[in-house]
Amino acid sequence: MSGSVTIAGLGPGAESLITPEVSAALAQATDVIGYIPYVARVPDRAGLTKHASDNRVEIDRSNHALELAAQGRRVVVVSSGDPGVFAMAAAVFEALEAGPADWRNLDITVLPGITAMLAAAARAGAPLGHDFCAINLSDNLKPWALIVKRLRLAVEGDFACAFYNPRSKARPEGFARVLEIFRETCEPERLITFARAVTTEDEAIRTVMLKDATPEMADMRTMVLLGSSATRQIERPGRAPIIYTPRQVPE
Amino acid sequence: MSGSVTIAGLGPGAESLITPEVSAALAQATDVIGYIPYVARVPDRAGLTKHASDNRVEIDRSNHALELAAQGRRVVVVSSGDPGVFAMAAAVFEALEAGPADWRNLDITVLPGITAMLAAAARAGAPLGHDFCAINLSDNLKPWALIVKRLRLAVEGDFACAFYNPRSKARPEGFARVLEIFRETCEPERLITFARAVTTEDEAIRTVMLKDATPEMADMRTMVLLGSSATRQIERPGRAPIIYTPRQVPE
Repeated sequence: MSGSVTIAGLGPGAESLITPEVSAALAQATDVIGYIPYVARVPDRAGLTKHASDNRVEIDRSNHALELAAQGRRVVVVSSGDPGVFAMAAAVFEALEAGPADWRNLDITVLPGITAMLAAAARAGAPLGHDFCAINLSDNLKPWALIVKRLRLAVEGDFACAFYNPRSKARPEGFARVLEIFRETCEPERLITFARAVTTEDEAIRTVMLKDATPEMADMRTMVLLGSSATRQIERPGRAPIIYTPRQVPE
Repeated sequence: MSGSVTIAGLGPGAESLITPEVSAALAQATDVIGYIPYVARVPDRAGLTKHASDNRVEIDRSNHALELAAQGRRVVVVSSGDPGVFAMAAAVFEALEAGPADWRNLDITVLPGITAMLAAAARAGAPLGHDFCAINLSDNLKPWALIVKRLRLAVEGDFACAFYNPRSKARPEGFARVLEIFRETCEPERLITFARAVTTEDEAIRTVMLKDATPEMADMRTMVLLGSSATRQIERPGRAPIIYTPRQVPE
């Protein structure tokens, strides 16, 4: 089999954040597969077939990619952000493991991308400048009790935290419960950043103290960054404040 | 003041992982500042002054960058990986906060990069495909007891983990103690990946079970990725295995 599957990260939105490695893979692809809005980011060209599918069909999409590669195609599976962070890479490997043995002879490569939490952190300053956790707040694929356990442990460890998928139509109440857990476990002045649609034309970055945070500050396109107890804000005249977590924790 | 400080991530090593955004900033810089090997990655050109400094002088380097910008220079501070992950962004903001008030009028921008843990994870498969923690194992700037506390909480939460700076000449014994903590708290079959010099010509990726891990498997250029209890290995004939953490945690 000479086909290949390349699982590539398109970054958070801006074209200038797509790595040259990913651009080169897209230029050589015969097929691009992914969620509709991500496939739409790949320009049409002769010789390229685009396969766009809806959300929540990650395993079907992965099987399709592996089947096409088994036919000799050069397939690129596109993810937003980084494909290894709450995105398509794990789904492709789940399909690979469950699929025909000869799929394991395919060339399969993961190309990293700028994941949303790092783009959001860069826009805010450096809120993840010390030890941090990345947690997917969606309970589609894991029990809510596990999310709660991890939130409490992350706060107990005084990690900064990045939260993916804080809110969806299917779970409008979940993020309100998350904020309640933070209010029970963190001081009211803890800084929390809502970074919406980072690096797109809809980008909006807002940092508030936990006591002023409301569930409506997050939607499906928002990354939420919770500071550690050490996270600080530098005020600037006429500019957005800078949020950062110092590198040092005193003895 | 028309000067600027741009804190830019060069990614883990390969030129093909430098974002176009960072390349554009470097093309417009008057001054590049950073740790010697990172500044060496920026090509010389007319009109560009390069200021390379040794490790562990991050605040001096940050003050220098801000002083040059206050003189009207377009300064790029280069970091390996992503500048917001155990790198220069937090150091620049520490210097900014402690420095003259007029520095706060400068244009200061952080440009994200591919951080080592995501490049390492991509090479291994998708070991960070579920909730994960990023922890700096260096105790230069924080108490050892805090590192131990965070390690234990991360394992208790069954996070996958990425460890930066596992081992240095100054702390040859630290990583052995880290492995002991994992052996006390994880099953012996837990997968642990050692990713050395990722995306450079010295790259070496190796995954073993925790019971077979030794401190010598990590050096200063190694990222260590500890799987969660769910992290799996897909064997492939004649190829490196794929390490991944499934997206789903059953109820």
